[in-house]
Amino acid sequence: MPSDPHPDEPDEARSWSGDFDPLADHDERQVLFAALDSFRCVALFSVSSRYIADPNRQYRRTAHLNTTHRRRQAFYALPSAHWQMLAEPPFSILDNFSRVDDAIDVNAEIADAILTTGLASFGLPATPDPADPDQSWHGTANSSEVNKAHSTLRQFYRDWSAEGKPERDVCYAPVLQDLRDEFGERTSSSEEIKVLVPGAGLGRLVFEICNAGFAAEGNEISYHQLLASSWILNHTTGAQQHTLHPFALHFSNLLSRDQQLQTVRIPDTHPGTAMMQAQGNFGRMSMSAADFTVLYSSPSNEGMFDAVATVFFIDTAPNLIRYIEAIRHCLKPDGVWINVGPLLWHFEDGSNASSHGGSRETESHDQGIGEPGNVELTEADVFCLVERMGFAIEKRQPADDRPWCGYIQDPNSMLQPLYRPSHWIARKKKNP
Amino acid sequence: MPSDPHPDEPDEARSWSGDFDPLADHDERQVLFAALDSFRCVALFSVSSRYIADPNRQYRRTAHLNTTHRRRQAFYALPSAHWQMLAEPPFSILDNFSRVDDAIDVNAEIADAILTTGLASFGLPATPDPADPDQSWHGTANSSEVNKAHSTLRQFYRDWSAEGKPERDVCYAPVLQDLRDEFGERTSSSEEIKVLVPGAGLGRLVFEICNAGFAAEGNEISYHQLLASSWILNHTTGAQQHTLHPFALHFSNLLSRDQQLQTVRIPDTHPGTAMMQAQGNFGRMSMSAADFTVLYSSPSNEGMFDAVATVFFIDTAPNLIRYIEAIRHCLKPDGVWINVGPLLWHFEDGSNASSHGGSRETESHDQGIGEPGNVELTEADVFCLVERMGFAIEKRQPADDRPWCGYIQDPNSMLQPLYRPSHWIARKKKNP
Repeated sequence: MPSDPHPDEPDEARSWSGDFDPLADHDERQVLFAALDSFRCVALFSVSSRYIADPNRQYRRTAHLNTTHRRRQAFYALPSAHWQMLAEPPFSILDNFSRVDDAIDVNAEIADAILTTGLASFGLPATPDPADPDQSWHGTANSSEVNKAHSTLRQFYRDWSAEGKPERDVCYAPVLQDLRDEFGERTSSSEEIKVLVPGAGLGRLVFEICNAGFAAEGNEISYHQLLASSWILNHTTGAQQHTLHPFALHFSNLLSRDQQLQTVRIPDTHPGTAMMQAQGNFGRMSMSAADFTVLYSSPSNEGMFDAVATVFFIDTAPNLIRYIEAIRHCLKPDGVWINVGPLLWHFEDGSNASSHGGSRETESHDQGIGEPGNVELTEADVFCLVERMGFAIEKRQPADDRPWCGYIQDPNSMLQPLYRPSHWIARKKKNP
Repeated sequence: MPSDPHPDEPDEARSWSGDFDPLADHDERQVLFAALDSFRCVALFSVSSRYIADPNRQYRRTAHLNTTHRRRQAFYALPSAHWQMLAEPPFSILDNFSRVDDAIDVNAEIADAILTTGLASFGLPATPDPADPDQSWHGTANSSEVNKAHSTLRQFYRDWSAEGKPERDVCYAPVLQDLRDEFGERTSSSEEIKVLVPGAGLGRLVFEICNAGFAAEGNEISYHQLLASSWILNHTTGAQQHTLHPFALHFSNLLSRDQQLQTVRIPDTHPGTAMMQAQGNFGRMSMSAADFTVLYSSPSNEGMFDAVATVFFIDTAPNLIRYIEAIRHCLKPDGVWINVGPLLWHFEDGSNASSHGGSRETESHDQGIGEPGNVELTEADVFCLVERMGFAIEKRQPADDRPWCGYIQDPNSMLQPLYRPSHWIARKKKNP
């Protein structure tokens, strides 16, 4: 990394990855720039943003407030007696639009904070010289990138709010229990147990695994997720420090407006404090920014991990065989693969690249996520394939016995998309 | 209607609406033509279809089999050792594509049957003269219309299969219970009680209300729904007569392939047989094809109904005030409005017209569903508005006490979007 804004922090928590420099590669740099710029676009909502070069601030603000702007227009298009009644209490529809604007502003503060630390990490200026391609990151995000920034912010509800705990209890708690069952409780004198977490997202599972005394390496392809996880893990200064309105943009299936405007505080647990309190018992933490199958199929990662934990991850695979090969390659003999998640094949409605966080076009676009072809498997297919490719499945939760969980789900909504994730453990056979 | 293919059927079940002739109006005719043509497009899959004018049948077939065609291409694009393994048992991915094709064929038979009865109802030829605008209905459907035909077929799972009963038990059973509580059990000597069902869809609730001895009038704006409900109510010859693969196009969140290829038989209950068995106790049934707010705000419908039952309907309103006005207008004094449903505002992501079944551009496009403006209300807003507009809410199910239900939901999927619909009863005040 070009700069280190927090030189006194422990090394473990800051590492993006050993020898990875996205600024060195033109295509990779553009992907990073677009992710940074998308957070800037979201931060433009923010009253206190420092990243607005645009002189006509109010115009930009209005243009970005598409959510409430078009709703105001539709509201005023109602018969005037109707909208006038609905503008008065107890409906107060116009006041609610203003409150939603305020909520968007509050969320924008988080985007602003992520951007600040992201720029510092990569030594990029807030107001770049437009003529310098090495730093001209402004204006590189398209609407798809901006949508990813918004959904990344919402994801803090799931990973880093007290209210998201029920979702984490279904998805992360079984992994921690399985690790303890397999390796026992960890102490500072224990031998280091290395756990890989592909699709690490906002880093909560990585954090929890380290907090339980294991060494955890998160892997993530999306710069949106990487920038946001780096911020929450390394650059927040205390618990409950930031306010998020996770459901401000939801206008349907509401019992009341309180529901739409509810806030959560993040992080529910401050990672830095937890690390200090754990003293020597907090495991080594690292994060790699790379395509999973490419990095973990490499010779340097052969037999490196005692366990791999995939949570809501395997259905990002266009070709699950590649994922299984990579997991088998990087696991030690007798190593365990713990899986929790559904099979919502992410590429089902599009090309392989478009639905993944990275969506990057690198020179090696015929490798990893960009390799041609895809296939959608059933759970029965997955079990069969995993066993055929050198694993023994040692535990599988019966379908009837699976807990339900939402995914960034308002628990009071009249519509609840609920998952019943598959939970199983497979062990790498010594002699397949 | 120009022709009556079943002159010996009881009048009640055949009526589209008293004085309504969509062929008389150019714009309305085009909407009807597009709906008919969309069922023809779906029926083109069918081996036995009589509606294929295209000489290059295999080409059309392939073009329409987009679902499996692009998946086959993506499958063969995998590394050859991979797809060859996955083509063998137990995966048999290629065989599964063929089975999905067969399932699409089976569903196409239903589209074909709907089309046959629809054409007969309107006196239209299967192979129209392309030069005659009064009958040239071929080629009028766009992909959005074809998607509506597909989703209309899937809806038979919810309304007319034994497997859909759990969904109906949550949504229709409370309405029937409320009607009995309000009006008592009906016998052939009872005074006629008239119930209006806006958004009648495939007609199951209308049928059940009549089967309980009430007179029911269904209202529906979508020709897709009208054609399909007319077919199932009037033109099926027995129970379990037709096979439907409701989830053939679902490739995600499957435990096994059986789940994707499961069949249901429709209708679970044969309407004609039920009518005969009920003898005089089967209430008068009718169906109106019209924009709800326009038709039921008309002087001829003032104070005509003892009850209005809205199920998964009120959130189709761009302006709920118009719906409440129409319901109040057509109810008798002291009449009851029974509601079951969520608040998934259908226009939230688009214009008012685009997300509704009809999507028709009529001369009166500034009335009814086409009137400008929209607003998204909370349940608290809805209660307040209903009471302010001349109703007393007499019963409302507490949020904690509401049953869950899917909407055309595979009960074994690893992802279950579940509703907790709001259920309440409001009574029209004599003096608001």
